[in-house]
Amino acid sequence: METVYITRREHFNAAHKLWREDWSDEKNEAVFGKCSNKNWHGHNFELFVTVKGAPSPETGFVINLKDLSVIIKNLVIEQLDHKNLNLDVPFLEGKLASTENLIIEIWKIIEAPIGEAGGQLCKIRLVETENNFVEYFGRKEPY
Amino acid sequence: METVYITRREHFNAAHKLWREDWSDEKNEAVFGKCSNKNWHGHNFELFVTVKGAPSPETGFVINLKDLSVIIKNLVIEQLDHKNLNLDVPFLEGKLASTENLIIEIWKIIEAPIGEAGGQLCKIRLVETENNFVEYFGRKEPY
Amino acid sequence: METVYITRREHFNAAHKLWREDWSDEKNEAVFGKCSNKNWHGHNFELFVTVKGAPSPETGFVINLKDLSVIIKNLVIEQLDHKNLNLDVPFLEGKLASTENLIIEIWKIIEAPIGEAGGQLCKIRLVETENNFVEYFGRKEPY
Amino acid sequence: METVYITRREHFNAAHKLWREDWSDEKNEAVFGKCSNKNWHGHNFELFVTVKGAPSPETGFVINLKDLSVIIKNLVIEQLDHKNLNLDVPFLEGKLASTENLIIEIWKIIEAPIGEAGGQLCKIRLVETENNFVEYFGRKEPY
Amino acid sequence: METVYITRREHFNAAHKLWREDWSDEKNEAVFGKCSNKNWHGHNFELFVTVKGAPSPETGFVINLKDLSVIIKNLVIEQLDHKNLNLDVPFLEGKLASTENLIIEIWKIIEAPIGEAGGQLCKIRLVETENNFVEYFGRKEPY
Amino acid sequence: METVYITRREHFNAAHKLWREDWSDEKNEAVFGKCSNKNWHGHNFELFVTVKGAPSPETGFVINLKDLSVIIKNLVIEQLDHKNLNLDVPFLEGKLASTENLIIEIWKIIEAPIGEAGGQLCKIRLVETENNFVEYFGRKEPY
Repeated sequence: METVYITRREHFNAAHKLWREDWSDEKNEAVFGKCSNKNWHGHNFELFVTVKGAPSPETGFVINLKDLSVIIKNLVIEQLDHKNLNLDVPFLEGKLASTENLIIEIWKIIEAPIGEAGGQLCKIRLVETENNFVEYFGRKEPY
Repeated sequence: METVYITRREHFNAAHKLWREDWSDEKNEAVFGKCSNKNWHGHNFELFVTVKGAPSPETGFVINLKDLSVIIKNLVIEQLDHKNLNLDVPFLEGKLASTENLIIEIWKIIEAPIGEAGGQLCKIRLVETENNFVEYFGRKEPY
Repeated sequence: METVYITRREHFNAAHKLWREDWSDEKNEAVFGKCSNKNWHGHNFELFVTVKGAPSPETGFVINLKDLSVIIKNLVIEQLDHKNLNLDVPFLEGKLASTENLIIEIWKIIEAPIGEAGGQLCKIRLVETENNFVEYFGRKEPY
Repeated sequence: METVYITRREHFNAAHKLWREDWSDEKNEAVFGKCSNKNWHGHNFELFVTVKGAPSPETGFVINLKDLSVIIKNLVIEQLDHKNLNLDVPFLEGKLASTENLIIEIWKIIEAPIGEAGGQLCKIRLVETENNFVEYFGRKEPY
Repeated sequence: METVYITRREHFNAAHKLWREDWSDEKNEAVFGKCSNKNWHGHNFELFVTVKGAPSPETGFVINLKDLSVIIKNLVIEQLDHKNLNLDVPFLEGKLASTENLIIEIWKIIEAPIGEAGGQLCKIRLVETENNFVEYFGRKEPY
Repeated sequence: METVYITRREHFNAAHKLWREDWSDEKNEAVFGKCSNKNWHGHNFELFVTVKGAPSPETGFVINLKDLSVIIKNLVIEQLDHKNLNLDVPFLEGKLASTENLIIEIWKIIEAPIGEAGGQLCKIRLVETENNFVEYFGRKEPY
């Protein structure tokens, strides 16, 4: 059995800030720098979702990319695109809106539906700017 | 005399919304779509500033890119990066925060300083997403 | 009145070949090289459509990008995406499927609808590979 | 001994369709969507081949990139560039022309020659569009 | 007659420095900054050459891209790739190795051969880094 | 405990050559090809540094990207940017200036400081051109 990894890219544009209510302005500024601007800032986020599996002898597919795209769009992009990560997103409530926290929550949301669609979620990459991105492999640590 | 065009790219990450106070929510939504989300969204903006002139026989430069970069950073990026275009930017006050309006205001701010530095501002490109950008040539219409 | 240029990117994936029925295989191969492969080859095409105009005082828009996107998708992408440029595209019938010919035909199709939507089509860029693209300005020759 | 991974990118432009002879048009359309267009469509494919090994004390190289490039070009690109994946490629005969199936076949072709050139093939990435790509690690599953 | 603009990208990797013999080290450093490092630095340069003309009714081409590529490679890339712009390039002798000076010299070299091949050179873009590039239109100033 | 991988990109422009003093010109040319040009050539290098760890409950960060950026800039970029890898870089003295050797040395320099800043260095990617890059995982071989 041969395992192939297939990746789908989707994107969303969102506002956020890195800010703790229980910290002074000075401490927020010291830790989060420009990202603590009270009136928000934003990004074009790119989301790469990787699913692994053996290609189906019937279709040649690990997973039908149309299905994968629908899962990501319906469950994630709909909730994040043109939204404020701090104010508009139920699954981030009470969490700091860092890309690290965001990628973990996205994993939790799409892991089961991708499994039901016949694939196995194995990696997410979330790109915030051309200079930084995060990756998450669930409980695995490949390196 | 040979005219060369030189371009410097800078970037900024900002939040904004497209929204008119004097319109109903429905009308805002109808015209501006997802961009009207009350709680803002945001982008990684790329700004390309083009200056033309004859290369100096002394330096080979149309304009020293360090000088051009300082002008753009001090006068534009400082005011826009990690800011809210609707709330934090004096030169956009009272204007709709569209890329079209933004690019015209940026031109007004940097045209004279670039002239004083010995160059001639001739084009700005402002990229909002990989799928849309605006360009402005001042009073010229090359095509 | 200030003229701003706004550009929307769309894309389509298509097959084509460069081939003349009235030429021998040898001549087709000599002129069109690998592009003459009888069984077709294909590309991910990127289409950049530029519209100019003064930003509306009401909306800040030269043209609503949603409207521009709908025009391009309905009139162009629908006809080209996942199609064979030589076999499936009525507006290319009887024409060599070069990017030069394609860009001229796309202009003819979208110029009037963009005008009716309140904008003025002024440039199209059609990217075939990372190493080649064509541009068309209608009857204008800016340089 | 320190293991470094080196990657070479090559590309090819090809036509294909996702289509099963033994299925009705309706079923092909339902499963493969636009990719089932009978008259083909195509892509600019990018192929990233990763080889690992210890840098040679003599050359500083894991593998000479000229050698790696020749292997990929002679054995893979020559057979795929400006070709029809369904009709022109012997090693895909009888297989669905999905990127999943294609990447497995490419591995089989270049694994041994890369080994003979002193490297160890450990990863292939095949990019079909900016929105989807597949990866293959042979029998390994790093995550 | 319809004029289409076609662009071919080629690239070269080269070393250079910005440095005047007749200036002190301090003045070189003050004017050229890090680019004045005596032991050179280097870039991956991208060269975009744009040719305009009416598509040939016989081939659909403004110019055969194979011919254009050969002209650029033989006359420009051969002389610049993996070279030192200050030491190895006869046509830059006695000139400051700025991108501005380089683009003017490249124009002089390829304008006539492109004309003989049936095209009209109308624009060159030379990209030095993702943050700066120069453009040259010969004697024209479109904007 | 959930492990997230965060990556920061920095860049530097440098000259180098692949050349052994103890080899004849012919042998250098035969092995290193154009890269052996005596007068150097150069590249825009991109450096991606990946750090893993559990996001801090206090900040949401694996590591503060400002800290990571300062480490990379102070310890690596300062030593490489606008430099000659063969002549100007103490930590490459006596080594062939291949990307393979360079990436291993960069690892040695930043591993401990990143650890002191609370992260764990787990991957470096060094991109030399759009067609080749190297990766290094320290003593690990994930695939």
